[in-house]
Amino acid sequence: MKFNHIAILGPGLLGGSLALALRERAPQCRVSLWARREAAVEEARAAGVCSLASTDLAQVVEGADMVVLCVPIGAMPGLAQQMAPLLGPDVIVTDVGSVKTPVVEALAPLLKRFVGSHPMAGSEQTGLAAARSDLFEGTVSLVTPHPAADPAALEAVAALWRLVGCSLRTLSPQEHDAAIGLVSHLPHLIAAALVDVVCAQNPGAMDFCGNGLRDTTRIASGPPEMWTEIVATNHAVLGNQLQAFIARLQEVARDLAGGDDSKLKAFLTNAKIQRDRHIKPRI
Amino acid sequence: MKFNHIAILGPGLLGGSLALALRERAPQCRVSLWARREAAVEEARAAGVCSLASTDLAQVVEGADMVVLCVPIGAMPGLAQQMAPLLGPDVIVTDVGSVKTPVVEALAPLLKRFVGSHPMAGSEQTGLAAARSDLFEGTVSLVTPHPAADPAALEAVAALWRLVGCSLRTLSPQEHDAAIGLVSHLPHLIAAALVDVVCAQNPGAMDFCGNGLRDTTRIASGPPEMWTEIVATNHAVLGNQLQAFIARLQEVARDLAGGDDSKLKAFLTNAKIQRDRHIKPRI
Repeated sequence: MKFNHIAILGPGLLGGSLALALRERAPQCRVSLWARREAAVEEARAAGVCSLASTDLAQVVEGADMVVLCVPIGAMPGLAQQMAPLLGPDVIVTDVGSVKTPVVEALAPLLKRFVGSHPMAGSEQTGLAAARSDLFEGTVSLVTPHPAADPAALEAVAALWRLVGCSLRTLSPQEHDAAIGLVSHLPHLIAAALVDVVCAQNPGAMDFCGNGLRDTTRIASGPPEMWTEIVATNHAVLGNQLQAFIARLQEVARDLAGGDDSKLKAFLTNAKIQRDRHIKPRI
Repeated sequence: MKFNHIAILGPGLLGGSLALALRERAPQCRVSLWARREAAVEEARAAGVCSLASTDLAQVVEGADMVVLCVPIGAMPGLAQQMAPLLGPDVIVTDVGSVKTPVVEALAPLLKRFVGSHPMAGSEQTGLAAARSDLFEGTVSLVTPHPAADPAALEAVAALWRLVGCSLRTLSPQEHDAAIGLVSHLPHLIAAALVDVVCAQNPGAMDFCGNGLRDTTRIASGPPEMWTEIVATNHAVLGNQLQAFIARLQEVARDLAGGDDSKLKAFLTNAKIQRDRHIKPRI
């Protein structure tokens, strides 16, 4: 599939990195960029990441064969509503939101050829300044079609992510939110709570931490507004997962108090085996 | 302070890295290495990390002005007992154990010039094969003297860690175990429990995790026997810290269920601020 013009809405880490990756991997493709704020438009122009940057939505999406929403999930329904009358019937729309059920439910009725997606790329850094053309390379992008989604649109969205270096997995929006709750949203809450407890008990201790606490809590340095929106949006799934995690920790606390080292050893051995089996080294 | 001969007991990641660091930074210093198993002695000889490698403790410590215990904490009291009659009155002894109160209590009465220490270096990897001459560079080493410790011995132990690139902090063994429980042992239990819960609920989800879960759980790939010993030895401190963490998560679960996003936002904002303030980027 050949893209002629892709419009990216939102000039943050993901939108900016997508623009840079397309410039490198599809130099013939026109990339236009929409930002809410004029200052962000200026920054994008100065960085030279796209053919056109503007706060004018109509101008940015005009002539695009694909639109990629890279704005916070709370801003997506409003933007989709504004955009719907501006798009021709063939224009494919996708998004990069971290929670999919409510996004797909809100956007699918508004946009004929919408297929949600979620590239599992990013970092605790934010903004265009942190964007990198290789951000998506070697990562997995999850594509989460509505049951009634157009198969050709699904294929085009998959082609976009393959183009920038992702491998693909297709999940329902509900499967996505359950799985990503576990591997992304729950770890975020845990990392933040760990920072909180360490600081409450002994902030000075953080000054001599090794790489362990540094890595365990890295994601807690991510943008709080974005993460509040994510965890609040996925709160039902996440609430149950958090309870399961608390129950498991209570079991660990009992084994620790009980003085039966064989249970602790079985717990730590199993965790090591599972992690070594399932998680590939850092990209 | 100039070292003429340092004996390292235990050829693992820390012992091996210390030997390599000394070869680089103090080439005039003789380094001898003790290992429990003949196979480990052969490996150390083949790697050329020391002047002498042997399973014979008397041979290894003979003539040393400093002995560094780099064995699992459970093996330290036995080794100290074996070693005590072999050492002259001036020989300084330190260790690299991750829990200090019981180690210092057991070793200080046996070894006249013992000062415990804990370099905050390491990784989830183990063994001589993972050893690196720069493992200690830029890290903090905690020195944990017994109240009756010899000040000259304390200074010599500090000099050793400075020599291999550490900055120094002095703490009592009890202060150490409380602080390191928070920044190292508690994160380890949390990382292992997170792997456990994700695998119990949806092992397939781990296949498409991003760097978030990868980093959050990295330390769970550490050696289970060593970590069982550490958490079991520090169980009293750690039990309280685990309860504080569980209580904080229960509060988060209530805020999540309550639908008051401002509390979630305050929680995530505070965690980001604290982490950015206290934790320096990865070395």
